[in-house]
Amino acid sequence: MRNIGIGIVGGGYMGKAHAVAMLAVGAVFGTGLRPRLQMVCATSAASAERYRADYGFVRATTDWRVLVADPAVEAVVIASPQETHRDIALAAFAAGKPVLCEKPLGASLDDSIAMTAAAEASGVANMVGFNYIRTPASQFARQLVQSGAIGRVVWFRGEHTEDFDADATQPANWRSFGAANGTMGDLSPHMINAALALIGPISSLVADIQTVHETRPGATGPARVTNDDQAQFLCRFDGGAMGHLMFSRVAHGRKMGYAYEITGTTGAIRFDQEDQNAVWLYKAEGPQAERGFRKILTGPLHPDYLPFCQGPGHGTGYQDQITIEARDFLRAIETGQPVWPQFRDGLAVMQVVEAAHQSHKSKAWVEVSK
Amino acid sequence: MRNIGIGIVGGGYMGKAHAVAMLAVGAVFGTGLRPRLQMVCATSAASAERYRADYGFVRATTDWRVLVADPAVEAVVIASPQETHRDIALAAFAAGKPVLCEKPLGASLDDSIAMTAAAEASGVANMVGFNYIRTPASQFARQLVQSGAIGRVVWFRGEHTEDFDADATQPANWRSFGAANGTMGDLSPHMINAALALIGPISSLVADIQTVHETRPGATGPARVTNDDQAQFLCRFDGGAMGHLMFSRVAHGRKMGYAYEITGTTGAIRFDQEDQNAVWLYKAEGPQAERGFRKILTGPLHPDYLPFCQGPGHGTGYQDQITIEARDFLRAIETGQPVWPQFRDGLAVMQVVEAAHQSHKSKAWVEVSK
Amino acid sequence: MRNIGIGIVGGGYMGKAHAVAMLAVGAVFGTGLRPRLQMVCATSAASAERYRADYGFVRATTDWRVLVADPAVEAVVIASPQETHRDIALAAFAAGKPVLCEKPLGASLDDSIAMTAAAEASGVANMVGFNYIRTPASQFARQLVQSGAIGRVVWFRGEHTEDFDADATQPANWRSFGAANGTMGDLSPHMINAALALIGPISSLVADIQTVHETRPGATGPARVTNDDQAQFLCRFDGGAMGHLMFSRVAHGRKMGYAYEITGTTGAIRFDQEDQNAVWLYKAEGPQAERGFRKILTGPLHPDYLPFCQGPGHGTGYQDQITIEARDFLRAIETGQPVWPQFRDGLAVMQVVEAAHQSHKSKAWVEVSK
Amino acid sequence: MRNIGIGIVGGGYMGKAHAVAMLAVGAVFGTGLRPRLQMVCATSAASAERYRADYGFVRATTDWRVLVADPAVEAVVIASPQETHRDIALAAFAAGKPVLCEKPLGASLDDSIAMTAAAEASGVANMVGFNYIRTPASQFARQLVQSGAIGRVVWFRGEHTEDFDADATQPANWRSFGAANGTMGDLSPHMINAALALIGPISSLVADIQTVHETRPGATGPARVTNDDQAQFLCRFDGGAMGHLMFSRVAHGRKMGYAYEITGTTGAIRFDQEDQNAVWLYKAEGPQAERGFRKILTGPLHPDYLPFCQGPGHGTGYQDQITIEARDFLRAIETGQPVWPQFRDGLAVMQVVEAAHQSHKSKAWVEVSK
Repeated sequence: MRNIGIGIVGGGYMGKAHAVAMLAVGAVFGTGLRPRLQMVCATSAASAERYRADYGFVRATTDWRVLVADPAVEAVVIASPQETHRDIALAAFAAGKPVLCEKPLGASLDDSIAMTAAAEASGVANMVGFNYIRTPASQFARQLVQSGAIGRVVWFRGEHTEDFDADATQPANWRSFGAANGTMGDLSPHMINAALALIGPISSLVADIQTVHETRPGATGPARVTNDDQAQFLCRFDGGAMGHLMFSRVAHGRKMGYAYEITGTTGAIRFDQEDQNAVWLYKAEGPQAERGFRKILTGPLHPDYLPFCQGPGHGTGYQDQITIEARDFLRAIETGQPVWPQFRDGLAVMQVVEAAHQSHKSKAWVEVSK
Repeated sequence: MRNIGIGIVGGGYMGKAHAVAMLAVGAVFGTGLRPRLQMVCATSAASAERYRADYGFVRATTDWRVLVADPAVEAVVIASPQETHRDIALAAFAAGKPVLCEKPLGASLDDSIAMTAAAEASGVANMVGFNYIRTPASQFARQLVQSGAIGRVVWFRGEHTEDFDADATQPANWRSFGAANGTMGDLSPHMINAALALIGPISSLVADIQTVHETRPGATGPARVTNDDQAQFLCRFDGGAMGHLMFSRVAHGRKMGYAYEITGTTGAIRFDQEDQNAVWLYKAEGPQAERGFRKILTGPLHPDYLPFCQGPGHGTGYQDQITIEARDFLRAIETGQPVWPQFRDGLAVMQVVEAAHQSHKSKAWVEVSK
Repeated sequence: MRNIGIGIVGGGYMGKAHAVAMLAVGAVFGTGLRPRLQMVCATSAASAERYRADYGFVRATTDWRVLVADPAVEAVVIASPQETHRDIALAAFAAGKPVLCEKPLGASLDDSIAMTAAAEASGVANMVGFNYIRTPASQFARQLVQSGAIGRVVWFRGEHTEDFDADATQPANWRSFGAANGTMGDLSPHMINAALALIGPISSLVADIQTVHETRPGATGPARVTNDDQAQFLCRFDGGAMGHLMFSRVAHGRKMGYAYEITGTTGAIRFDQEDQNAVWLYKAEGPQAERGFRKILTGPLHPDYLPFCQGPGHGTGYQDQITIEARDFLRAIETGQPVWPQFRDGLAVMQVVEAAHQSHKSKAWVEVSK
Repeated sequence: MRNIGIGIVGGGYMGKAHAVAMLAVGAVFGTGLRPRLQMVCATSAASAERYRADYGFVRATTDWRVLVADPAVEAVVIASPQETHRDIALAAFAAGKPVLCEKPLGASLDDSIAMTAAAEASGVANMVGFNYIRTPASQFARQLVQSGAIGRVVWFRGEHTEDFDADATQPANWRSFGAANGTMGDLSPHMINAALALIGPISSLVADIQTVHETRPGATGPARVTNDDQAQFLCRFDGGAMGHLMFSRVAHGRKMGYAYEITGTTGAIRFDQEDQNAVWLYKAEGPQAERGFRKILTGPLHPDYLPFCQGPGHGTGYQDQITIEARDFLRAIETGQPVWPQFRDGLAVMQVVEAAHQSHKSKAWVEVSK
């Protein structure tokens, strides 16, 4: 058991989730490396100091370069806005420090390519924060698919739908501007990652992207929204399966519609993050009159279930996903073995996003570059 | 209250359902016209006579021309294979007799155009057997959409998925050959009709059509399947809404996956025929902390609920859908007023099917002709 | 195939349902006996004639004695108020005519005893209209229990909850007065019958019966409600299983809460009539990580599924339950073999109702007399 | 912000959960008091040291008296077996130290009475670990009931059902012996607490308690199980509502069947911990045709939702319940204001458990002493 100094860039929503995860992960999972909250970086001195005190960091800074450079910071978590990811990651890798970077990997495909190259050149641990796929339920679904429990996959339907922007009278905010903050840029990566993780690479797609609410109340009158609020594409996977992915921030009634259905030649799987501890499994076996989708509650028999929960039904929550992620990041550092999902997995997602934008513009099927 | 002689072409699955509906409809709905099962037509004399005796028809025949020509047959129900629809319908209209034709309207777009022209030239009642959309639940969903209960529609997702062909070891049968018997030809019309009825015309689409099980055991070795077993398309509706429709006969676990989701600017609706008496409604109104999809069980307050069921919870079943259809067909005959869905509604479905085939071949978005 | 004249006493809600069932049953099930709607009896000449014309009976009467006595009436369906059941049934049995009597069997335990004695003395077909237990889903549940699919039963929970009287401002009506019209008298029999059919005889129970809304608006001021609107009891079955049954007409949100859960030593079953085509089955077998309640949609593989529905997912509705019942009544007449549930099954239900009333008064556990 | 030294007696399942909660609570909720894991007590020196190192305590001991006496331990969490609760709590209160005690409060009613008296005499913070009722969902349900959202409560049905002992071939273990480890002793307190918290005091009840699996494989042949594995009671609440509570450790298929239904005069609520982030609410308001149970996903608008989760759908898990509990315990210490549920709430639960045992023995309704 050894101590490791963690630096977190960003102290808001995701920065806090990572800080809590680092506080808890050692006791929860009995990790070999034990995190020490060494330094937090925020945009103002006041907020940095507040995060430091609140979460229990040793130091605070407003300059991520100070954080990256500090020898007491032995690993870096990037939880700042997308456009900062590239510079911070490159500096950290240059300093030989492992990086756990929030999704999406970069603000652009170029950024993501550069970051992946730097990660792989550095040889240190690198990971992307696709935490939804880390639930016991989704890890179990992945295990089922990979073990052939439902045969060869012929169909995948995934969606990430929420309704935080469904009210047209809601004023414009940072989400309303810039492709990177649109539905394809910001919301789609989690579910694209799920599709790739569960089924495999996407070979081609045809996309349609739309702005439903074209203006929103702004400070000085109506503001024009410059990005998309719903999008979808048809695709084919390398293995031949058909797919459909859909993303929306205007889907009334959906609060965490990270959901998918997988059909194979001998069974099927269904999952919805709104009931995040259940996997629905159908197997074409046993008496026909007794077949049906069964609702499996995840528990100690399923991958990544939190070890202090002795029985099934002790539900996993959002924060647990981040703690599981922290465990794997520490494990990658400790063992020197790569842990999925790495930067190249984040890059693969960006390549699909890019293909979707191209297809929407060309109104045609496009191949996904790899 | 007046008697009307009904002739039904076809005595199998759907023919029987129509016969039962005609026996029950008068007592159930107190219709002005009371059906008399006058003549049934089947391919062999033995089966025709068996249907006659079993369902209580006055006469039996193996020649649909005899049925159409008999003066005692005052209205014709076509429940025979698709390729026979055109000739029978044209003859019936020529004889001035109302026609209720099973879906899909014709075996081809050409057939459907000719049938619609004949129907409209004749001026007599004409109807297509899209019975799923006739449930109280789907009629209520339609009423909600049309009354603006969920605002302007921005998204529609529909599927018709079943698993009757999911087992690859199942021998080839009539369903395995010919575009008209494939998933797009045979399974898609019900849900395309639902999309048009719920949201309105489709302007353009891009489709992908696939044969998952390319061969099946045949009488003398492996038989090549010549049609599709799953298909999907992205679309835009005339009103601007985005859509996705998906059809499969290899969707393990789905028994009657006639299901849709509709998102509007102020609410959303969900429906699944596997629980056919429930409509899920979300309205963005009232205290935010109390919002959620509510499960509404259809009852006497909803359209087309069977009148002898005094309270909600007296579930509607498949046969009831056919009885509701029979009522409307009789009403159209009695009043001379058209009742939805007419032949032109069946034609509109075929135009979408045709566009999907074109798009699949050209790998491009296509406009739906109207 | 032979004709049989049916007389129905009562033409309202249940009378109509039976009339429709008799019209449809021959075509649906290909029964050996084919019903002819011979005579309907109602309280006024006008309503009797209206029922006759609407449902297609040959004759109408206001005197049930005329109906019972008519030689053309070969079997009698009793769908009139409870207090009339005894006299009609006794007269019919005296005339040697089979009887299908609506539930509850008699208006009192005495009536039920007399009716059962008369039925058994007559030797003709006799049946009670417990139609909910006749759905394919509940028949499948019964088959599962009886075949040992869930082991020895250790627990049963049943409820019949609706909300038709939940609104306290609703005026008093016939339901508000008299024990026979209360929740125990009128609502409980269906679920008690289910308990007996699924698990077996109840040996003892302790009950609590309550009037939630003690007064209701009446014609001339507040009217005192003289019967119960919710009731429950703990019980033990002869086989040792524990049970709980609950009945309510004031259960807001429940529209057809005819629902039960059965736990056995190797599995469990759940059912709710609000989704009447699904049975939920849990079996403690196969890999532990893949166990869960599975939702089985009833179809052609399940008992009593309507034969014209080729695949699962063609839902059964309320009217179908009555048609299934009609088939079995005709079968009992044709074959001379008793068909469940007979009058003695209706009597067994009344014995449980009686024990519950006794227990409520004595505030003690009571044995159920048999 | 001030430091406080925490001592935890017990380092197994619940001890670990409390340790993790204390590590995370400050960062999660920004509490005024910041816990320091000061000392852990376990039965062997080896396990005590292992817990110390794993969870990050300063010291370890095998003697709870040492822990209670250490001035650096400023508050005590009791997570050791029931029979130890009394002595530890009394010693802690004698030393003027706040206590958070796991449920059930004492191993007997006598213990619970003594502990409550000591707690109240001491004047320091005291709390019982009923963590299930602390979920945002159940706190929201409680808020709804208390605000009158469903009118006057007329019905409550609660169950705590699991299946960890459903397999009869599972060998006997500590759970198989002693009333305190039976279903009434160990499993019932959470749901009884829920009933009291949601509806109010129980006035009287009649209970039935059973041992389904009377023997289990033991080390030297069949071992006789000396406690109950399923139990139920009918009750009346002080407010007049009827109730039913049921407990089982042999309920196949149930993994965390902590579930309840509440019916009021104007609405109803349903909850099941197996889907712990959802509350189902029915309100008898708005258009009748649009009424139904709505599924509300808890989020930032609901009580106790974790503050770093910005939107709904970021699910709460089991560990979060313990963290919420830790926050309230710290708040009670900091403010000197009592925080629900206190020891007297734990005592009230034990009084109901006692009444149930009495009723089972006497086979009669009994009043619950208070």
